[in-house]
Amino acid sequence: MLPTAAQAQEAAATPEYALIFNTLLFLVGGFLVMWMAAGFAMLEMGLVRSKNVSMQGLKNIALYSIAGIMFWFTGYNLMYTGVDGGFIGSFGPYNFPAPGADDGAAGYSVASDWFFQMVFCATTASIVSGTMAERIKFWPFLIFTAILTGILYPITGSWQWGAGWLAEMGFADFAGSTLVHSVGGWAALAGAIILGARKGRYGPNGHITPMPGSSIPLATLGMFILWLGWFGFNGASQLAMGTIADAGDISRIFANTNLAAAAGAVSTIILMQLIYKKIDVTMVINGALAGLVSITAEPLAPSVPMALLIGAIGGAIVVFAVPLLDKLKIDDVVGAIPVHLLAGIWGTLVTPLSGSGTFGVQIVGILSIGAFTLVASSLVWMALKVTMGIRVSEENESLGLDKSEVGVEAYPEF
Amino acid sequence: MLPTAAQAQEAAATPEYALIFNTLLFLVGGFLVMWMAAGFAMLEMGLVRSKNVSMQGLKNIALYSIAGIMFWFTGYNLMYTGVDGGFIGSFGPYNFPAPGADDGAAGYSVASDWFFQMVFCATTASIVSGTMAERIKFWPFLIFTAILTGILYPITGSWQWGAGWLAEMGFADFAGSTLVHSVGGWAALAGAIILGARKGRYGPNGHITPMPGSSIPLATLGMFILWLGWFGFNGASQLAMGTIADAGDISRIFANTNLAAAAGAVSTIILMQLIYKKIDVTMVINGALAGLVSITAEPLAPSVPMALLIGAIGGAIVVFAVPLLDKLKIDDVVGAIPVHLLAGIWGTLVTPLSGSGTFGVQIVGILSIGAFTLVASSLVWMALKVTMGIRVSEENESLGLDKSEVGVEAYPEF
Amino acid sequence: MLPTAAQAQEAAATPEYALIFNTLLFLVGGFLVMWMAAGFAMLEMGLVRSKNVSMQGLKNIALYSIAGIMFWFTGYNLMYTGVDGGFIGSFGPYNFPAPGADDGAAGYSVASDWFFQMVFCATTASIVSGTMAERIKFWPFLIFTAILTGILYPITGSWQWGAGWLAEMGFADFAGSTLVHSVGGWAALAGAIILGARKGRYGPNGHITPMPGSSIPLATLGMFILWLGWFGFNGASQLAMGTIADAGDISRIFANTNLAAAAGAVSTIILMQLIYKKIDVTMVINGALAGLVSITAEPLAPSVPMALLIGAIGGAIVVFAVPLLDKLKIDDVVGAIPVHLLAGIWGTLVTPLSGSGTFGVQIVGILSIGAFTLVASSLVWMALKVTMGIRVSEENESLGLDKSEVGVEAYPEF
Repeated sequence: MLPTAAQAQEAAATPEYALIFNTLLFLVGGFLVMWMAAGFAMLEMGLVRSKNVSMQGLKNIALYSIAGIMFWFTGYNLMYTGVDGGFIGSFGPYNFPAPGADDGAAGYSVASDWFFQMVFCATTASIVSGTMAERIKFWPFLIFTAILTGILYPITGSWQWGAGWLAEMGFADFAGSTLVHSVGGWAALAGAIILGARKGRYGPNGHITPMPGSSIPLATLGMFILWLGWFGFNGASQLAMGTIADAGDISRIFANTNLAAAAGAVSTIILMQLIYKKIDVTMVINGALAGLVSITAEPLAPSVPMALLIGAIGGAIVVFAVPLLDKLKIDDVVGAIPVHLLAGIWGTLVTPLSGSGTFGVQIVGILSIGAFTLVASSLVWMALKVTMGIRVSEENESLGLDKSEVGVEAYPEF
Repeated sequence: MLPTAAQAQEAAATPEYALIFNTLLFLVGGFLVMWMAAGFAMLEMGLVRSKNVSMQGLKNIALYSIAGIMFWFTGYNLMYTGVDGGFIGSFGPYNFPAPGADDGAAGYSVASDWFFQMVFCATTASIVSGTMAERIKFWPFLIFTAILTGILYPITGSWQWGAGWLAEMGFADFAGSTLVHSVGGWAALAGAIILGARKGRYGPNGHITPMPGSSIPLATLGMFILWLGWFGFNGASQLAMGTIADAGDISRIFANTNLAAAAGAVSTIILMQLIYKKIDVTMVINGALAGLVSITAEPLAPSVPMALLIGAIGGAIVVFAVPLLDKLKIDDVVGAIPVHLLAGIWGTLVTPLSGSGTFGVQIVGILSIGAFTLVASSLVWMALKVTMGIRVSEENESLGLDKSEVGVEAYPEF
Repeated sequence: MLPTAAQAQEAAATPEYALIFNTLLFLVGGFLVMWMAAGFAMLEMGLVRSKNVSMQGLKNIALYSIAGIMFWFTGYNLMYTGVDGGFIGSFGPYNFPAPGADDGAAGYSVASDWFFQMVFCATTASIVSGTMAERIKFWPFLIFTAILTGILYPITGSWQWGAGWLAEMGFADFAGSTLVHSVGGWAALAGAIILGARKGRYGPNGHITPMPGSSIPLATLGMFILWLGWFGFNGASQLAMGTIADAGDISRIFANTNLAAAAGAVSTIILMQLIYKKIDVTMVINGALAGLVSITAEPLAPSVPMALLIGAIGGAIVVFAVPLLDKLKIDDVVGAIPVHLLAGIWGTLVTPLSGSGTFGVQIVGILSIGAFTLVASSLVWMALKVTMGIRVSEENESLGLDKSEVGVEAYPEF
């Protein structure tokens, strides 16, 4: 009798509540990650000069919108449908179940999964817009965004999260240090090189003209928004909340995610004090973000000291990579390449220390996804460059994109 | 035995967890909609000139506070208690159950329902403050807010959500394209006409003096806050999350809501490029919001292409209606009338295409709620005008409300 | 059979879902309170002068980071482990359970509890940074923050929430009017007195030089963020959501919390109008916050009229205490002492009117926690003052901390 009752219960009651918990996890995690779109917008609007602030807002609204539409139109199915150990899914728009449908066969509402995966895709596009700010034309940027979110990101995503060849090899990337952050970073790097630096940024004899961001409060706000959103990014990547073990894992992910970000901020503060005697708050902002990116590949398994170390080194990467990029004359307006690409590589490399993946496979994953994204992004940027052009005129760059393309100044009275 | 066990289980376990899920939906949805109060505040502070920014902040804090108090004092019972197919509920403050009470007889904690409905009421008031910015006196605005949130909104709300006469006719307005957004828009329209345009806004021969907003980042932030909050607005209007079918419907609502907003933004971008050759970001902000308002009357039933179309047309309405209002010399500082009133009408009209309501009944609902709100609001505004006056002196309007009424400048150092 | 089935069910199904709900409450409440760190950052960046804005952002990032690390390193165990009616817990870092562990023996995932308690600890530190802005050195501030969050806050916290001697006496402080807000306020008061006022703030003959905040929109945003976060602060302090009675209590807490804040704002608006004829929006912002602090000691038991009264008096305290502190030449840059210390005392004193605690025990709690925090904080501030110094040079104070310590201006183009 007892087993029978228990069986009845499992069949009738247990699954449904677990399904709801799982769906709720995707929805709450999803709206937190959606909120990161605002975080990137604020961060970037704060770090560009005032003559390009309206344009940066426009780009962020546009890219989030396009990412959503493209991930429905091609992205989701390319990434998740019929990959089967291969290199790509299937083409075509995603079909939502009908209203009222009991669509929990996958263990959650599939529409909640779509929403959650869509906001990850949008995050990837957000990374690109910051690096290439202040001199890229609006429309080519939108076209690149559509291709990145509708095709490029879903393809490499399918290799791992779509159960493709990398997943079969045992690659470990819990919430996307590589799949999201490095992919965005590689696309940004390709773009930055092909687009070139802002006019006047790099002078002769290694002289660098500082072009400070227009609003530190906006950048700070952006960082806090991203930090908040990351609890959804990493926490809901547990993908299930229907057992106390899963709920406990999500809780541990929250703790590790927070501690790695804290360590990224603190290590940056200490290094800035030691090296420069002044603590550039934009470095600390990026240090905290690098801590977050670093822990994203494996936010559950590390012990607290390990999570702190991973985050602290992420922060240190920012301190050393930002001037290095300037030496290479790669003009990354907001520091997205150190934060998302380099800290993303670091986080992915280090997961074997916590027992996830092997160094060999991690390197295969980093290199294969990096090579694909760098080459494919470069081809798209080059094609856009030779056809419609990707760079605004020198005159418009000097004038500022707000006047030349938006027609609205960010702060008209100041 | 099996049936008996299942019955026992349904009686003992199922309802309570479903009750908790439903309550949780109201609380999470409710805090997301509460956050929209901040979204309106930021949007409006960004779109007024710097001399009126502190006042706009003050008004938004005040209106959200008053809405909460009034919705307890008279609003909730007027809207929900004893309407019974009629035109109005009952008078008197709302009584919360005692602490520790098992108040789940309605299928959820009634206090969570109060909270969720209260933030909808506050949203209605938020819509009005933007349109009438920069020249309305503070105290008459507060009195209007108290009447709108305590009496007017609850009365028309009772017709539909209180199970009044419109609900019995079969009117469809899932989350309030008409009940919330158009009501706010009608009240704003009445106010804008009776209050008159800002001094110097409309010159002779149809000349319009641009009065650009003081901070595009704040307006952009406001839009992202509203977009985030709308997942609570539409998603939690499902009113139940205790079955996987309901959780799946909420998920589909998230997806459609996001896609309609995206389409509103994209259609605005395309139209601005085609018509004006520059992409005014404030238009795009309002386009995204119009997409959100448009899908609100029925966010679950439309297919994705239909949701995109509904949102895109919402965005187009903004592009064409903003200059039209200026031709009519109706001075709507933030564009709330196109976004909330016109896109709200559009969204309500189109629900029959997705199988909700009939065109005839939708028109009855739009007209009856519109006529009531327009007439009642006009009477209140006129009464305030002839008694205490609703408009600041010309001198104070020139000086700015921050100096004349708040005594604190928004940006004293710039 | 039926009892057996029901028993089986209770053992197998019921507890696990309740555990998940409880854990989810901590996670959602926790991320809302984490978001309050951004609220404090925005509030303070808005209320300091533009030459100190970057520093205020840096401090807020740093303090939140340090609080997280210290609460892991010493705080949690000092506060919660082995207090047993005494005065302090045990020393040592907190050990998280292993991934995949079923750590629900306490009724929730212990890691979710750690996260939730950590963000409360961070809130305490946030309160201090505002009061002492614009003239405190960065590094001594960080050291104080580490001591406050790692030692001082946990010790007094252990007396009540760690089941220490005050809890055994029957002290009532539901979500921390005293344990969090007053503790932060006492530490800020000690610091403000030892640090001294900003240069030029208080002249001869009682003359006070106004030093208005640089951005009212940021301060307004900060208040809305804090208001939102407070639903997590008070609501999740119910500590359980696994029954509909608990979920209903959380809902009632949401309502009372919102109404007390609203009453704080409205009472401040009315008093400012009556006394000053102008409605300083920064006072209203602090009035709403004081309403929130006041209701925090007992947000569940009060009737609505009582909650409104508690919040309204909280707002009134701000109106009268801000000028009083200036008369005493205690320079509290953002008004944190009236909001968090005085309204915190008020809220704690008044709980017996709603049936929680007795006046005698409430006074014992207020005085004992106040005395400990005031004395211990003073000792730490004095030790920092005589060793490394806590105040920047007069030259750097005039120049602004952004130039002297951060090296980055908040608004370089204005």
